Amino acid sequence: MERSRTLKNLKDAFVGEAKANLRLLGYAEVADKEGYGQIARLFRAISTAEKVHALKHLRLLKVIGNTEENLQAALEAEASISENTYPAFIQTAEEEAFPAAQTSFTHARDAEACHARLYKHAMEHMLAEEETSYFICPVSGYVADGEPPERCPICGARGETFIQVE
Amino acid sequence: MERSRTLKNLKDAFVGEAKANLRLLGYAEVADKEGYGQIARLFRAISTAEKVHALKHLRLLKVIGNTEENLQAALEAEASISENTYPAFIQTAEEEAFPAAQTSFTHARDAEACHARLYKHAMEHMLAEEETSYFICPVSGYVADGEPPERCPICGARGETFIQVE
Repeated sequence: MERSRTLKNLKDAFVGEAKANLRLLGYAEVADKEGYGQIARLFRAISTAEKVHALKHLRLLKVIGNTEENLQAALEAEASISENTYPAFIQTAEEEAFPAAQTSFTHARDAEACHARLYKHAMEHMLAEEETSYFICPVSGYVADGEPPERCPICGARGETFIQVE
Repeated sequence: MERSRTLKNLKDAFVGEAKANLRLLGYAEVADKEGYGQIARLFRAISTAEKVHALKHLRLLKVIGNTEENLQAALEAEASISENTYPAFIQTAEEEAFPAAQTSFTHARDAEACHARLYKHAMEHMLAEEETSYFICPVSGYVADGEPPERCPICGARGETFIQVE
């Protein structure tokens, strides 16, 4: 049985829900700043619901493999983005004199390069014995392993602002 | 100064990071199931980093307004998706005999319709006095206000499995 239209629809629905998931987090930040704490909670709740939908659609697309395959896919994606996509975007932002975008792309490129190193380390060791936390810079997306640095090596943000993932 | 290419790049980068954010959560689920807890943590950490990048790109796109505008935009998006997009996807999944996709789309459609009601309520009252939690069904994305129901009205999942957003 031909399922090509539904597979295309699952992809589109996944992308739509993934975008909504984050757009709603952006709305929640603004609501918090404007003093609408309950509306911020509502946006975060519905963001979580969109995540549930996105993950369901994604599972049906069968693009998730086993952990070794997923590490390989993640590593390839990071390498391509940090070596090709972001460098081109940075150049264009410079040409168009859009420094804020240039910084956003530069932080992302530098962070992706460091993510690639973490994936490589994971693939070599499968991290069988380890049980450490990771700390993420809330400005640049730099990921530190074990404990946060004093300052983010990409953007200089202070280590105590890092987000811990247990 | 022309910034159109960079605005297009910011959009593309936002979508790419939003997709990666969720794909990595899918990888983390598999890693946890396969007993690779540390690799699951790594995927979740890098998922958080991609969220940081996506939100930075999104802010530069200036598509986030004030809270009243954001509620209106969110309501319109939900209405369009639940009234047009998902019904068409459900029909195609039925024609192509893909029942798992049909269910995923149906849950999403029903949840979006209930999200629209929550947005309308928020717009009418701006929720000034309220301070309640929301509970999200981990299967259908249904959002309950105040306390979880005994069973999800969309999919029947038990209330004690709901995710609380404070």
